[in-house]
Amino acid sequence: MKMTTRSDLWEELRALARHRALVESVVAVLAWDEEATMPPRGAGHRSEQQALLAGLLHQCDASQRMADLLEALEGKATGEPELADLRILRARLARARKVPERLIEELARVTTLAQEAWREARARDDFALFAPWLDNVLRLKREEAAALDARRGAWDILLDEHEPGLTERELTALLGPLETALRPLVAALCERPPPDGRAVLARPVAEVAQAALALEVAKAVGFDGSCGRLDIAAAHPSTVAIGPGDVRMTARSVASDNTATLFCTLHEMGHWLYDSQVPADRWGTPAGETSSAGLHESQARLLEALVGRSRPFWTWCLPRLQRAYGGFDDVSVDQMLAALCRVEATPVRVGADEVTYNLHVVVRCRLESSLLTGDLPVRDLPGAWRDEYRRALGVEAMSDGEGCLQDGHWAAGLFGYFPTYALGNLAAAQLYEAARAAEPNLEDALARGDFAPLRDWLRARVHVHGSTLGLLERVRVATGEPLSLTPLLRSLEQRYL
Amino acid sequence: MKMTTRSDLWEELRALARHRALVESVVAVLAWDEEATMPPRGAGHRSEQQALLAGLLHQCDASQRMADLLEALEGKATGEPELADLRILRARLARARKVPERLIEELARVTTLAQEAWREARARDDFALFAPWLDNVLRLKREEAAALDARRGAWDILLDEHEPGLTERELTALLGPLETALRPLVAALCERPPPDGRAVLARPVAEVAQAALALEVAKAVGFDGSCGRLDIAAAHPSTVAIGPGDVRMTARSVASDNTATLFCTLHEMGHWLYDSQVPADRWGTPAGETSSAGLHESQARLLEALVGRSRPFWTWCLPRLQRAYGGFDDVSVDQMLAALCRVEATPVRVGADEVTYNLHVVVRCRLESSLLTGDLPVRDLPGAWRDEYRRALGVEAMSDGEGCLQDGHWAAGLFGYFPTYALGNLAAAQLYEAARAAEPNLEDALARGDFAPLRDWLRARVHVHGSTLGLLERVRVATGEPLSLTPLLRSLEQRYL
Repeated sequence: MKMTTRSDLWEELRALARHRALVESVVAVLAWDEEATMPPRGAGHRSEQQALLAGLLHQCDASQRMADLLEALEGKATGEPELADLRILRARLARARKVPERLIEELARVTTLAQEAWREARARDDFALFAPWLDNVLRLKREEAAALDARRGAWDILLDEHEPGLTERELTALLGPLETALRPLVAALCERPPPDGRAVLARPVAEVAQAALALEVAKAVGFDGSCGRLDIAAAHPSTVAIGPGDVRMTARSVASDNTATLFCTLHEMGHWLYDSQVPADRWGTPAGETSSAGLHESQARLLEALVGRSRPFWTWCLPRLQRAYGGFDDVSVDQMLAALCRVEATPVRVGADEVTYNLHVVVRCRLESSLLTGDLPVRDLPGAWRDEYRRALGVEAMSDGEGCLQDGHWAAGLFGYFPTYALGNLAAAQLYEAARAAEPNLEDALARGDFAPLRDWLRARVHVHGSTLGLLERVRVATGEPLSLTPLLRSLEQRYL
Repeated sequence: MKMTTRSDLWEELRALARHRALVESVVAVLAWDEEATMPPRGAGHRSEQQALLAGLLHQCDASQRMADLLEALEGKATGEPELADLRILRARLARARKVPERLIEELARVTTLAQEAWREARARDDFALFAPWLDNVLRLKREEAAALDARRGAWDILLDEHEPGLTERELTALLGPLETALRPLVAALCERPPPDGRAVLARPVAEVAQAALALEVAKAVGFDGSCGRLDIAAAHPSTVAIGPGDVRMTARSVASDNTATLFCTLHEMGHWLYDSQVPADRWGTPAGETSSAGLHESQARLLEALVGRSRPFWTWCLPRLQRAYGGFDDVSVDQMLAALCRVEATPVRVGADEVTYNLHVVVRCRLESSLLTGDLPVRDLPGAWRDEYRRALGVEAMSDGEGCLQDGHWAAGLFGYFPTYALGNLAAAQLYEAARAAEPNLEDALARGDFAPLRDWLRARVHVHGSTLGLLERVRVATGEPLSLTPLLRSLEQRYL
């Protein structure tokens, strides 16, 4: 008779985890396809496919064999990856046993249809088309939160899906002071006259030239088309990791800003690098996955906001832009930076400058928390949105399409996701400060278009560690300091005041 | 206590069937993505995803509950759809119980990788890159055939996957006389001087203009972009039915023939109509699916070869081509038909004229049958391919890329599939003859760009019947005659001699 050894148990646990990850990666193909290529009337059938896969995932998470293995391996982890595997699988098991499969499947079905309804509502600028779907999604998310823990608030519970382990209290301790610090900064900066060189961004440039520059920059950062895609499309910008060798970015162009595609691509490249640099040999085990949504966002914001608006980057990039676009020979690096480091309160989050950006997030946190409690009925959302924007940023959207319909997150059932954008901004500033301190040549290299020092630092300090630690702990270990507002505020003040 | 009624049993059976169809439709999304959008290094992971889904399908087919339901409903079918449901599900159960799940999964994995290897081998014109993969696929297909029935030849057994119920004997009774009848016809036609107007097809036309014409024609035939896609891409032309509201075509352009995209689109539109006109309320039940590969192909060939090379079609289409392409005002319908109804022995099947086409099929039938028996070792395939082409068509490919690497079917594990192309040609001619006899205004309508009479006849006689009958029976019922060579030969002789 063969003895079952400890390593047999680990092997079986990891095989179950990889099986689950394989199902999830099929969900990712379908999600990418939905956004990028599915014809509109395919949404009904797609919602059935997603419900099927959500049910399979639930069965993986809740399986008795998984429970038995986790029990047998209790206290037997050695080292961070094993600890993380057990912690994450145990959390999935607990969640799966509390939330009924029927609810998981209904959420998958309804959010697929709600996203299609949202796309149409936004295109037609008609909130009424989306309102019943939002009501439906909210009902299901409240039910999910209640199943998980009836004693805590829904928003507090749902945060945990995207930023595991983070409590509403910890979040408020960061976002409250951030809002307080940003409001006067934004007010001061918005009063200044707009910089002279700004019109340079509005010069018309062919989309194909913008796409060519974006691809050139992406390749310099580390993009490899044999194991990924970069599509410039009308779809919502995103990065979808399907599996080893297949990570796909979508960026978009904006008629009024000829650098929008470039910045969108830099943002998605941050996600792409993280997804591509987690260790492939750990693929499918929890510890080998990327960590929280906030940490993911930090990688994107680091490249987009901190590198993309820096002098070293533009020293290298401007000649390439001039070659790709043609006719920008009159523009200097100083003018470009002045044009890009503009601060302006606008009604749209995507494309907002880095100073006002976090206020967009704060508005959404307040609104989604009230939507979940029911204090804010769905029918009152358009009005409440306008009120919040007037208060926080002093602006008003021209339409619901540019207002409360601008983001697809709620349609997708993503509540408690927006705060991860602000966390990502804080973490990005702190990580970038630490990277430059650790690698004194980092900015010189960027000025030559050499991203290797930055890429390698991020790989060693963040990417290869998968999800062994959550955002707060990872930032602390990588930078030697707890996550704080200081690096972000320091960086903004240095560059904008 | 609630009694289990006959209708409860049917409902449960259909629910299991729909569940299986849903899994299969996820396979279809992945297959489309593989061909159209997946980056090359995603193939390894994709092969794991496909193996997972193949395993799930196998579990659906072989489930004990399915076996119990089929037994309980034995002899209880009333009407054709119920009979077909039982017949097809029983065949799936029998197959699934004979072929081990391990083999099914390995086939899914290996064929995904083999297709990637084939793409590279073809692009680099290097058969050696593909040879080990073909060996591997053949080994697995032989194993599959032996598991299904060790006493019959592998090719005979594998035919059944694509043309259920058709035996090698029935097939040979059709293809043998077809080859005998075609050889002298091809020889006579190839001796003629090429028609004068032929150069018109070689005039350079922008791809975007070709795509615009293809889309205009597709819409006239019945294409609706809200529930499908038409992509003009480098990928192998194909139609993939994902589910109700989502059927996708890929067509391609050929530099030397400005009508290639149009004909490719007509072909895929035949598939598209069939996939889109099966009854949506029966979706997921076997009787509600499209029938055999040969019947599917007949729909494609009917539009491409018989409508697309007819005077009524060009009476309507030529002014549209002139508008879309510009500069074709000197071309008449007669010239266009003369140019299109050329007969020429060429080494490439796709794009072959309708007279020589079936000889390409016959060559492949002979070769794949010998590959399966092992009489033809894989390493000797390039030479055998050249020999067969010299004998059958008197031509030789310039390279293996245009020779034995031109088709991806074997890489995908499709053995016994090629004969369905010839069956499709026979069925197309017989169905089109019957349609014109039944609808005397059909061709007048086509000359006005009105495809409704043809579309409706096909829907009523073929599409809505799903797979209640196989190819031979469906053609007999739809046309009143058993499938024969006569309509095809009559049509070729009328138009070419």
